[in-house]
Amino acid sequence: MTKETQEKLNYILNASKEIETYNHACRILSYDQETICPVKGMETQGEVSAFLSNQAFKIAKDEKFTEAAEYLYEHKDELTEWDAALADQLHRTYIKEKNITPEKNMEISLVYNKAFVDWSKAREASDFSMFRESFKNVFEMNKEIIKLRDISAGGSVYNQLLDDYERDITTDVLDECFRKCKERLLPLLEKIMKSKKNIRRDFLDIEVTDEQQANIAKWLLETIDFDLERGAFTTSEHPFTNGLGKDDVRVTTHYYPNYFIGSMYSIIHEGGHALFEMLVPEENHEHFINGGKTMGMHESVSRLYENRIGRSKEFVSLIYPKVCEVFPQVMKDVSENELYEALNIVEPSLIRTEADELTYTFHVIIRYEIEKALFEGTLSIDDVPKVWNEKYNEYLGIEPENDREGVLQDVHWTFGFGYFPAYAIGNMYNAMYYNRMKNEIDINSLVSKGDFRTLNNWMAENVFKKADRLSPSEWIKEITGRTLTADDFLDYLEEKYTELYNL
Amino acid sequence: MTKETQEKLNYILNASKEIETYNHACRILSYDQETICPVKGMETQGEVSAFLSNQAFKIAKDEKFTEAAEYLYEHKDELTEWDAALADQLHRTYIKEKNITPEKNMEISLVYNKAFVDWSKAREASDFSMFRESFKNVFEMNKEIIKLRDISAGGSVYNQLLDDYERDITTDVLDECFRKCKERLLPLLEKIMKSKKNIRRDFLDIEVTDEQQANIAKWLLETIDFDLERGAFTTSEHPFTNGLGKDDVRVTTHYYPNYFIGSMYSIIHEGGHALFEMLVPEENHEHFINGGKTMGMHESVSRLYENRIGRSKEFVSLIYPKVCEVFPQVMKDVSENELYEALNIVEPSLIRTEADELTYTFHVIIRYEIEKALFEGTLSIDDVPKVWNEKYNEYLGIEPENDREGVLQDVHWTFGFGYFPAYAIGNMYNAMYYNRMKNEIDINSLVSKGDFRTLNNWMAENVFKKADRLSPSEWIKEITGRTLTADDFLDYLEEKYTELYNL
Repeated sequence: MTKETQEKLNYILNASKEIETYNHACRILSYDQETICPVKGMETQGEVSAFLSNQAFKIAKDEKFTEAAEYLYEHKDELTEWDAALADQLHRTYIKEKNITPEKNMEISLVYNKAFVDWSKAREASDFSMFRESFKNVFEMNKEIIKLRDISAGGSVYNQLLDDYERDITTDVLDECFRKCKERLLPLLEKIMKSKKNIRRDFLDIEVTDEQQANIAKWLLETIDFDLERGAFTTSEHPFTNGLGKDDVRVTTHYYPNYFIGSMYSIIHEGGHALFEMLVPEENHEHFINGGKTMGMHESVSRLYENRIGRSKEFVSLIYPKVCEVFPQVMKDVSENELYEALNIVEPSLIRTEADELTYTFHVIIRYEIEKALFEGTLSIDDVPKVWNEKYNEYLGIEPENDREGVLQDVHWTFGFGYFPAYAIGNMYNAMYYNRMKNEIDINSLVSKGDFRTLNNWMAENVFKKADRLSPSEWIKEITGRTLTADDFLDYLEEKYTELYNL
Repeated sequence: MTKETQEKLNYILNASKEIETYNHACRILSYDQETICPVKGMETQGEVSAFLSNQAFKIAKDEKFTEAAEYLYEHKDELTEWDAALADQLHRTYIKEKNITPEKNMEISLVYNKAFVDWSKAREASDFSMFRESFKNVFEMNKEIIKLRDISAGGSVYNQLLDDYERDITTDVLDECFRKCKERLLPLLEKIMKSKKNIRRDFLDIEVTDEQQANIAKWLLETIDFDLERGAFTTSEHPFTNGLGKDDVRVTTHYYPNYFIGSMYSIIHEGGHALFEMLVPEENHEHFINGGKTMGMHESVSRLYENRIGRSKEFVSLIYPKVCEVFPQVMKDVSENELYEALNIVEPSLIRTEADELTYTFHVIIRYEIEKALFEGTLSIDDVPKVWNEKYNEYLGIEPENDREGVLQDVHWTFGFGYFPAYAIGNMYNAMYYNRMKNEIDINSLVSKGDFRTLNNWMAENVFKKADRLSPSEWIKEITGRTLTADDFLDYLEEKYTELYNL
């Protein structure tokens, strides 16, 4: 490495540490806001957060910083793989934000904040028209941001947005994946709906206490080998994972008195996200590349633990005695198989976050098709609620009675577009690497024994290790030797539900 | 106001806002550390906090800032009373920290941090010798800091330290107050110890659940009119209050399964601190003078709510039905009067934080006498544990079996001296203003009715309002027309315990 490169690198690493310090504080503030901050304290908290994040923004916007970052990008061959990954990350950000001034940055924040407020009110009132203006502003702002980018590659605005959430993923890729999903899942769903199989579900809504739910949540985290010395769990309105560094990864859940499996499977889902954060190599943190993971990668892991593993027969068998012990009033006459079946029941429903494994994909497809049509100019904002309802009818045979349980249910359109597909891609990724994993370790036997250490180690070595350094397409290729496909996921669903529903 | 003064003021107010923003973040980080942060995440959290607090330190250390602050102090007559109070505060800090460089500041932090670590280990091992070296370093550092001060007034080092925690309080004042306490409380304690009165206390250690304790904690906060929209409560190892601004004041408590009144009276105590923060005038926050309150002032309020009010017959009568409802297993055969008596039992004990109202003062006197002797040079550090034990024997007739329940029980000597007396002074202040309050409002009747709004309003108008703007001696004079005296406190104790123990 030349002396100049070394100097630039030192400068960037020091500045990155300072940025990371501000970001750490912002993440704590955000965590605090979602878990404990009193309602009237939110405003000040938001101001403090905006100030600190602006301090970080200024560091990265400084000419000396961008100049050094671009220099490193051009001299990547002199760097270690970690520092080269950092140079890549900074370059990507530089390209994207080059023409975003602090003033524009503030303007963007204001549009999103306004949209969030309007959406909250509109959702409360179940009236899309109250959100329409902000929806339009977010839509226009998203287009404007893309146009400010210094990109020679071109591509449509929507492809650029998709790329922000899941690099390398385009509408061509998604169209093909979702076509296959529709082709194979719609007939499967129809067969299930016609099946005579009766799955017992009466016990799912028996009342439980918060203390019981906290008890099992802690036990489940311990079971999947979440390290409670390097993490914590509490409750929040919407469950989330906050990774503050490898030694501090927090998850939250939400306790519903009449839906005991809700908090259980939230905590397993977030626990999966957390393991991904806890088990990446230490070097990633030291070189400030932790955070290169995309949402699709992340969801692949959380859904692996929640669904593929968490709703498997082996896992249900593992947790059954504990569930009976913790919730005696619920489980008094419920067999292990009844619990397994209830956890895997297929029921077309209106709310994405509560959907079963099979119908979940359609919630994503609907949002994707709407977004794509908006950016292609074939759908107007005013028609979105109508089209939403039509698509729910077409794919799932049900229709929202109002905007609250329909078009207003998700928060995502208050800040952007292109986010939803990653939720579905995660399932496809994990089905792909699950098929490799099962050839190398005896997953079912490990889960039956509760040996999550071995399972997690496999994940760490094969799935987590390079996630921060590779693009998603490089990453899935590295793990499986293949490019993204829906096939493995669809095979899995067909096999599982054919057996479960005796099809 | 001249143009120059206006400019300096604007500069100071803007910079103070920035300092306050950093401090807000630091307080959230500290709150997080004490309530949720996983053990292995502490170190990073501490680094982030140190960085942010150093950013604030730099702003106030900037020459432009100190110059403007001193200018305002010299032109106070042009300022509003709030801005003048800010100028006063900044001037005091300036005088104290003028010769403290950032390097010295860091050195001080390191000494204190090391002392905290050593104390924790020594306490764990119950071995004072493991803390001795750090104790000495803190002692020497305290002396050094005082000597670096630019003070013409002079005065002993210990008087300067006392002044840091409770302005205007000197050893002359304390010697007289504590002389009276000993003179009147020791005979009273002796009479109580000899009394035939049997107070029932068997039910105090019946097991309760966390959920029950959380339930009553919330109810108690609501009862004293703590605003849950502007505050929150949770648990921590050591209960505390964190004031993040008037719209965000948080309290914590600690749940003991076999001591249900522990969390109840913690929450009332912290609730008192919180009301003090919530009910100061808005202008104090806008002019950045919120925080001028001393620890003695603060303890006077928390102890008023916890003891003077919280352990009164009227309050016990108010909460008795709810206590019975929430803790049926505890209260099944306990009368209102039995609860009242148990809450007021006098029992010499070794741990300050668990002491009753009467013996509490001796825990403070012992620490005060040791600190004073250390700074007068009549006591060596090596003799502190021995003298500690002798004094416990002399005043309370009991002796610690080990350092853990003796000299190592408090954390305070890991960072300084002069802190303890404020705990006792608080009781004296509140006894003084209670005597005025009872002439102006019918306290007993308000408490019986649960009308805390009226009571709190009286406190806000007479006790809280000017606390940030006045020194403690000016403040107590403003409220009561008198200077600090132990008399009212001692009258109260004599009357209360004479009746309770039929003396």
